[in-house]
Amino acid sequence: MERIVAQYYIETPLPVEKAAAVLAGEQSSGTFVDIPGETDELKKRFAAKVEAIQLLDVVDTPATPGPSRIGQQYQRANIWVSWSVENFGNNLPVMISTLQGNLYELTQFTGLKLMDITLPDTMTQQFRGPQFGIDGCRKLTGVYNRPLIGTIIKPSIGLTPTQTADIVSVLVAAGIDFIKDDELLSSSANSPFAARVDAVMAVINAYADKTGKKVMYAFNISDDMDDMQRNYDKIVEAEGTCAMISLNSVGTSAVKKICDRGELAIHGHRNGWGMFNRHPLLGIEFPAYQKLWRLAGVDQIHVNGIQNKFWESDDSVVKSIESCLEPITGMQTVLPVVSSGQWGGQAPETYRRTKTTDLLYMAGGGILGHPAGASGGVKALQQAWKGAIEGQSIEEIARQHPEFALSVAKFGKK
Amino acid sequence: MERIVAQYYIETPLPVEKAAAVLAGEQSSGTFVDIPGETDELKKRFAAKVEAIQLLDVVDTPATPGPSRIGQQYQRANIWVSWSVENFGNNLPVMISTLQGNLYELTQFTGLKLMDITLPDTMTQQFRGPQFGIDGCRKLTGVYNRPLIGTIIKPSIGLTPTQTADIVSVLVAAGIDFIKDDELLSSSANSPFAARVDAVMAVINAYADKTGKKVMYAFNISDDMDDMQRNYDKIVEAEGTCAMISLNSVGTSAVKKICDRGELAIHGHRNGWGMFNRHPLLGIEFPAYQKLWRLAGVDQIHVNGIQNKFWESDDSVVKSIESCLEPITGMQTVLPVVSSGQWGGQAPETYRRTKTTDLLYMAGGGILGHPAGASGGVKALQQAWKGAIEGQSIEEIARQHPEFALSVAKFGKK
Repeated sequence: MERIVAQYYIETPLPVEKAAAVLAGEQSSGTFVDIPGETDELKKRFAAKVEAIQLLDVVDTPATPGPSRIGQQYQRANIWVSWSVENFGNNLPVMISTLQGNLYELTQFTGLKLMDITLPDTMTQQFRGPQFGIDGCRKLTGVYNRPLIGTIIKPSIGLTPTQTADIVSVLVAAGIDFIKDDELLSSSANSPFAARVDAVMAVINAYADKTGKKVMYAFNISDDMDDMQRNYDKIVEAEGTCAMISLNSVGTSAVKKICDRGELAIHGHRNGWGMFNRHPLLGIEFPAYQKLWRLAGVDQIHVNGIQNKFWESDDSVVKSIESCLEPITGMQTVLPVVSSGQWGGQAPETYRRTKTTDLLYMAGGGILGHPAGASGGVKALQQAWKGAIEGQSIEEIARQHPEFALSVAKFGKK
Repeated sequence: MERIVAQYYIETPLPVEKAAAVLAGEQSSGTFVDIPGETDELKKRFAAKVEAIQLLDVVDTPATPGPSRIGQQYQRANIWVSWSVENFGNNLPVMISTLQGNLYELTQFTGLKLMDITLPDTMTQQFRGPQFGIDGCRKLTGVYNRPLIGTIIKPSIGLTPTQTADIVSVLVAAGIDFIKDDELLSSSANSPFAARVDAVMAVINAYADKTGKKVMYAFNISDDMDDMQRNYDKIVEAEGTCAMISLNSVGTSAVKKICDRGELAIHGHRNGWGMFNRHPLLGIEFPAYQKLWRLAGVDQIHVNGIQNKFWESDDSVVKSIESCLEPITGMQTVLPVVSSGQWGGQAPETYRRTKTTDLLYMAGGGILGHPAGASGGVKALQQAWKGAIEGQSIEEIARQHPEFALSVAKFGKK
């Protein structure tokens, strides 16, 4: 039977073989004493197996609190652990509990991070994965050979549906490809979900009828299960093309249920991600995270951005983008959503590092805060990406394009 | 309009007022530049508000990586931030995105942990909360004036339904109150869910018919949404009383959808919890966490145990138990599930620290690994709790009760 392999970056006060064996025991048949019924045959079939260990550095201070004593040293290592897929079949939540369950609490580890997962084909074949993915999102928006340019409605919360639609009018006329709700807004006292969909889609549909260009709007449907279904129906009825879900807040089973419908592209927002990832030796790394959400069927997923306003390094962002584009047999790739403090000046570096235009490139203030208005902001972003693909520097692009030059003047001096 | 208040424990290289203002801005109307439409009126109604700041110690090394420089100092503090409930109404996922969204990634913080939440009555009134809670679980099991004694089927994974039912027979005859699946097992190659329910409930129902005592079995229904519903139906049909869900793996919206059915007590397993909580300055503390799951409607929730096999301190476990028992207006309390390395020897200290018997006290190896068999194990646990309530020490209880004395001899010498 094929096996799923997880790579963990760990730190332990014990010999690594011993710590790894504890992890494997806890995450398969184990309890803290030998008990009747745990036969060798049963262990062989269902037990987790430590496949490989790679020793790294030794440190004097534990990464996270645990039983520590003076003079104690802590070994860091990469370890690879496998499970038979017959333990959980195509049950994503139980797979997650297997890969990321009680093991974070074991005293045998002072640090543990799930770095990546290798999924056997027989397992991934049981999942449809993204229904639209990159190709589908390009087809829905009619954008090819460059990133989709997107923006977020700001202020995040407080606008009425009419006020939101007014901003959408400006953005649509400015040539935007994609717009999204903020994650703080789904249905609020002064912006009921259905009323916002009606107001926004009237603008988008009218523009599409006139020009043939259909802007994708990701309405935030995050809510209780039934409300999400109702919100989804509302978007379909209004001829929208996309729904947004806050992945961590809604959770795996409900996200998958929504993705399974397959009528709308699903924009996966990763807000809350920092708590899983900010510590170098605790939680989960993005390559593993995006695979789980790809199995659930998400079409677009946030990856932060180069030179972002958050703590994350450019190296980490590049790795995240690359992981989204890495093929999984029989499954579409997921569109990386680049955002956070982006205004176009990061386009040359983003392209230089990733060599891809398969991105949804989001600018919030960078578009609506542009000195020449939203139209200038969208133009500036298109100019930035055209120049980036041609290998131009920020200065070269600014010399050729007045709108981008204005962006540089306003956003580039921080 | 009433406001929800969140308490965060934070660390920042900036003046705390400034860092707190950034958090409030990010989690309400903000982007990184001023933009049109963000009026003072809108800000006043929808913006987050920093309610209070309590300065704590200053340290030289940041708790989590961020932009650091030599000589930099980091101020720790408690801060209280509030939002109007009209921002999200009764939408739990959007409330979670508001309380725990992008803020963990802000460079302005080198550490941030959500410690507690104060929910206004007008908000909690919109949630039913636990359908059974402590009183309901007592009624379903007929256990009063002492903790429910429970155990976990081990080995965690690999047993057939018949083998599982055989263990259940032994446990039921031994006088157990509660049994649960392991979180690693829902439906596996050799233990299909429905077959396991049939085999186990045949034993439990036969014993209930004979004696009047109905043992509660928490079948792990964690799965895709539709499969969870089908699994739930199966339990109801077989006259079971409880379903278990791995809360973090399944997620808020699907858990709430299941809890809303209200026919079965919901056993909330917190596996994966370590990644949210192990670091002192990252993630979420249990008092906040259990409130979110109580709003979703979970009836029982794991709190680890005194002198557990994991890293967590006794103080933290005590705080978790107390938080489950803290009233929320118009809502039932949630039954704390004490587990991890428990064998009864921890009962006196657990009672001394918490003064409650409103617990589901779980022992795995402590029961099935007892020298006199499961019957001896269950007796030992009941003896331990009887003695604990009477204020006896481990030694005093062991002198009076041979079964507990055997437990002390086997498990007490580590």
